[in-house]
Amino acid sequence: MSAQPTACVLIIGNEILSGKTQDTNLQFLGFELAKLGIRLAEGRVVRDEPAAIIRHLNEARREFTYVFTTGGIGPTHDDITAECVAQAFGVPLELSDKAVGLLQRSGRPLNEARLKMARVPRGAVLVENPVSNAPGFRIENVFVFAGIPSIARAMFASALPMLAHGAPILSASVDAYLREGDFAEALTQIQQQYPTVEIGSYPFNRDGRLGASLVARGTDRALLAKVVEKIVVAITALGGETNVP
Amino acid sequence: MSAQPTACVLIIGNEILSGKTQDTNLQFLGFELAKLGIRLAEGRVVRDEPAAIIRHLNEARREFTYVFTTGGIGPTHDDITAECVAQAFGVPLELSDKAVGLLQRSGRPLNEARLKMARVPRGAVLVENPVSNAPGFRIENVFVFAGIPSIARAMFASALPMLAHGAPILSASVDAYLREGDFAEALTQIQQQYPTVEIGSYPFNRDGRLGASLVARGTDRALLAKVVEKIVVAITALGGETNVP
Repeated sequence: MSAQPTACVLIIGNEILSGKTQDTNLQFLGFELAKLGIRLAEGRVVRDEPAAIIRHLNEARREFTYVFTTGGIGPTHDDITAECVAQAFGVPLELSDKAVGLLQRSGRPLNEARLKMARVPRGAVLVENPVSNAPGFRIENVFVFAGIPSIARAMFASALPMLAHGAPILSASVDAYLREGDFAEALTQIQQQYPTVEIGSYPFNRDGRLGASLVARGTDRALLAKVVEKIVVAITALGGETNVP
Repeated sequence: MSAQPTACVLIIGNEILSGKTQDTNLQFLGFELAKLGIRLAEGRVVRDEPAAIIRHLNEARREFTYVFTTGGIGPTHDDITAECVAQAFGVPLELSDKAVGLLQRSGRPLNEARLKMARVPRGAVLVENPVSNAPGFRIENVFVFAGIPSIARAMFASALPMLAHGAPILSASVDAYLREGDFAEALTQIQQQYPTVEIGSYPFNRDGRLGASLVARGTDRALLAKVVEKIVVAITALGGETNVP
């Protein structure tokens, strides 16, 4: 899977780190990117400090095919993402006439605070947001989205045509009603036999019944089906029930 | 707040990046650490690859007072956290007799897979887990917890006596029924007047009523109350309603 595009999500905002807000954008992006064949390979949750944002952004944009940032592009003093992205790329922030036009759609007075949302790094392309008009943007391989989930989702939809796809990352799974410690050795053997498939084991407790969800991920649907079949045979041989969800 | 202990959470596991699983441990830890006066300053979501885990762990343990990892300490082949932590510290993994004793409590046969959960890096101290017996551990400033939220929470409770506390990070907040763009400039002035208080603005849409939750965070309760009072006066002067939740 090494030829597949990779991605990193930077979740920017003290409210995520303080526990005030539960992030849900990483899960959304990981799930949607997998469908496009882009592997979300890393996430970082970064505080509202310019030095931290710039450093993480520069590390991530060099290491991964795409970087998606969420949060910090509103009109208030704690919204510093656009400025940090400009600094990371060494370009100025410039007022975008197109962004001003989009903001005018909301019919609110374009004061200094709102005009801040129309400033993007030189060379950036806008990513439109039909939910609340204020746009995100793309610069090189970095996509800058809002943190509010409904808006982040709308921006991701607008950004879709800008993304190169890989072979979709598929998954197949089976629930095994057996403890992980009882099937781990058998599962290791199956993983070794099929190194191009990534097998994960995620234990659960359903109304007191212990078991694990066994997930095979990869790009070859037939191979995934074969791996799941092998897992079912192995779990059954160990006396465990299985259930393909 | 520079004298306060800081922390980084490393969320380890492909299931978080693939979108299969929604992480909730970061929010829990951020919230609980703030009460102890430990500022969660960063989070990273790391894939199940030894090189990535070792690199992120070594970066984080040098930069922050504490590192908490979640995930990857079960008995299956994809549970590689303990081994990676040992490698990051340059020490061997060793069977802990005490951990074997804890695992025996569950009454299941201690096969090779289960014994894996009793191996910890040399020098580590166990962090007990009354939920499912298999322990986490601490080595120097790194705490290694399970990914399952109920178990991560139990391990955090067991680890509490090992943590140095700072001044608790308090918060006070007010909901403003006014758009961010309408009060941003006034809020910036208040933030500049009270630089030791961190003011965040988090917009909401409640049944079509737009507004923002304004949160002041810091260690001085009286100062937080004063900042919230200033915010209420400013919002009211701009014609917005406020509501202290």
